[in-house]
Amino acid sequence: MRSRAAGTLIESPEITPDELQLAVRNHSMPLEALRYPITPLGLHYLLIHFDIPYVDPDTYELFIGGHVHNPFRVNLEELKSRPAKTLAVTFECAGNGRARLAPRPLSQPWLGEAVGTAEWTGISLASILREAGVRDGAVDVVFTGLDRGVQGEVDQQYERSLSIEDAMRDEVLVVPGWYGMTHVKWLRSITVLDREFEGYQQARAYHFRTVEGDAGDPVTRILPRALMVPPGVPDFMSRMRFVEAAVITIEGRAWSGRGAIERVEFSSDGGASWSEAKLEDELSPYAWRGWKTTWNATRPGEYELCARATDSSGNVQPLEQNWNFEGVQNNAVQRIHVIVGPADREQAPVDSL
Amino acid sequence: MRSRAAGTLIESPEITPDELQLAVRNHSMPLEALRYPITPLGLHYLLIHFDIPYVDPDTYELFIGGHVHNPFRVNLEELKSRPAKTLAVTFECAGNGRARLAPRPLSQPWLGEAVGTAEWTGISLASILREAGVRDGAVDVVFTGLDRGVQGEVDQQYERSLSIEDAMRDEVLVVPGWYGMTHVKWLRSITVLDREFEGYQQARAYHFRTVEGDAGDPVTRILPRALMVPPGVPDFMSRMRFVEAAVITIEGRAWSGRGAIERVEFSSDGGASWSEAKLEDELSPYAWRGWKTTWNATRPGEYELCARATDSSGNVQPLEQNWNFEGVQNNAVQRIHVIVGPADREQAPVDSL
Repeated sequence: MRSRAAGTLIESPEITPDELQLAVRNHSMPLEALRYPITPLGLHYLLIHFDIPYVDPDTYELFIGGHVHNPFRVNLEELKSRPAKTLAVTFECAGNGRARLAPRPLSQPWLGEAVGTAEWTGISLASILREAGVRDGAVDVVFTGLDRGVQGEVDQQYERSLSIEDAMRDEVLVVPGWYGMTHVKWLRSITVLDREFEGYQQARAYHFRTVEGDAGDPVTRILPRALMVPPGVPDFMSRMRFVEAAVITIEGRAWSGRGAIERVEFSSDGGASWSEAKLEDELSPYAWRGWKTTWNATRPGEYELCARATDSSGNVQPLEQNWNFEGVQNNAVQRIHVIVGPADREQAPVDSL
Repeated sequence: MRSRAAGTLIESPEITPDELQLAVRNHSMPLEALRYPITPLGLHYLLIHFDIPYVDPDTYELFIGGHVHNPFRVNLEELKSRPAKTLAVTFECAGNGRARLAPRPLSQPWLGEAVGTAEWTGISLASILREAGVRDGAVDVVFTGLDRGVQGEVDQQYERSLSIEDAMRDEVLVVPGWYGMTHVKWLRSITVLDREFEGYQQARAYHFRTVEGDAGDPVTRILPRALMVPPGVPDFMSRMRFVEAAVITIEGRAWSGRGAIERVEFSSDGGASWSEAKLEDELSPYAWRGWKTTWNATRPGEYELCARATDSSGNVQPLEQNWNFEGVQNNAVQRIHVIVGPADREQAPVDSL
């Protein structure tokens, strides 16, 4: 079979072998890990465009240069000895949900679990830039990773930029509130530019485009999303859920990079009617917020559960996908199929659903 | 789309949405992690039939009972206070490579990276069984996990057994040399039986069957396999590799549960000719063995790299798949497609390969 270029639109819901190669490399977070405020090690999502590079901690150096007065380099030991802070920050891939689009842009086929929350410890980017002495006329700050490969027919290190204003913000060690592509891993250099950065991952990829050939809008901050821990027990293959008839607790987490989470709603009828969930206290201003509600699952039958988040800027999750050519910013509500009743073959003909 | 039952044979190389749900939950080990003798946290493969259960370490108890003189229960603190040993053991899923079969049995669609090596610390199973006092006539020892779901239309906790002879072996805390299904996670109970265990995962699943309706042979010990770190840099979507013309080192690891690794061979022409790789010292009798070789990649062009392991029992990896109805024990040689030459569009028309 011939390989097709990333971005090709696929009509079939079946996944190509190339997409499978990406899906097995780039780990999703199993939804049951939503139980934990900080995602357990190994369950956080991973998106790595190229390969994980080999980095020797003994010889690693970070270069800071470009449009600055005092370019310098710093090794890992020196970096670790600087005053650090720790922030709990939720990360999400900009392409989360892409595999649910129809047609589907060929790329990493996320279903909806490309998310995780970690406690990030490090030094602020502003302190590094102050030490380098940013010169007048600085426009963008470019972050270059050690990971290299070919994308869009361009041989590249993974590189993204921030405007000088965003780079100088206090909370930036990672970039809270922005989609995952912003956080360059295995950072090799920080380069201040006196012009806009035109690299592939900045100028070409990561744009929300609904009209072919249009420049589109750059992807920046995370749109709101709520996810629930699927209740009951699964069927191995279909992942259909079985819940014994009872009044049960539904729990999950919700986040937005565009404001605080102000509301989470729950539906057990596929979004026809909604009830309000109870929000837990904030873990950090940059992390997801826990929510809980009660579902009166006493009547046997088949149900479609949904959750919907609203943030303080008035952004609400849509019921349908916001289709676009790259399959980014797809924050349509989660849908979980559940059978209330015993998990055996007479009650639940799994294979004929 | 209607869900199909696990085991259904799929003719198309395209992956069904149900398989994708499993692929995103069950993490593969990125092949570049073969660089490390012990797989870094978070990169070891995961195969979880149902959900990851919530386990409270403060209330967790393990029950030991059945055909024994002194059934007992033990909590996590007590378990941790017992004399422990540490073993480096390589785990591999029995279904590793399944997605490369044609037709393909519907199940977890592993490509070939369902492997990892950890240092496991714990107490020996034999010491637990001796404390319980196994009664005469014991046949099997059943391990029951806290994870529950439906498979083959059976509502079940995940359960597997070992014969009493295998269970009493000295090195068994995990079960070195056996495929991954043997190692029951989130262990709730150990039950000694005076008869053969007939549970779903033991008597029905995990059999090598080439004739429909045949009972088949139970899956037990791991067949040999060698994997290499793919050289050069990848194309994002096709994962095709680009290597600059040079004499380069190829490295990887090889393992078998049926004997020591005695030989690893390398081919750069798709298996038409082979050269011998150099084996590194053993890490542990139960873990993969490092290997290295030199590839004279000085001539631009397209290559198919292969590695092939032979163990001390004379088992050799086949060039073609050993097709079977469950897609287990597929240890055909790895094939990596590489272009020697610059990684740009003129030299390497990735999208038209």
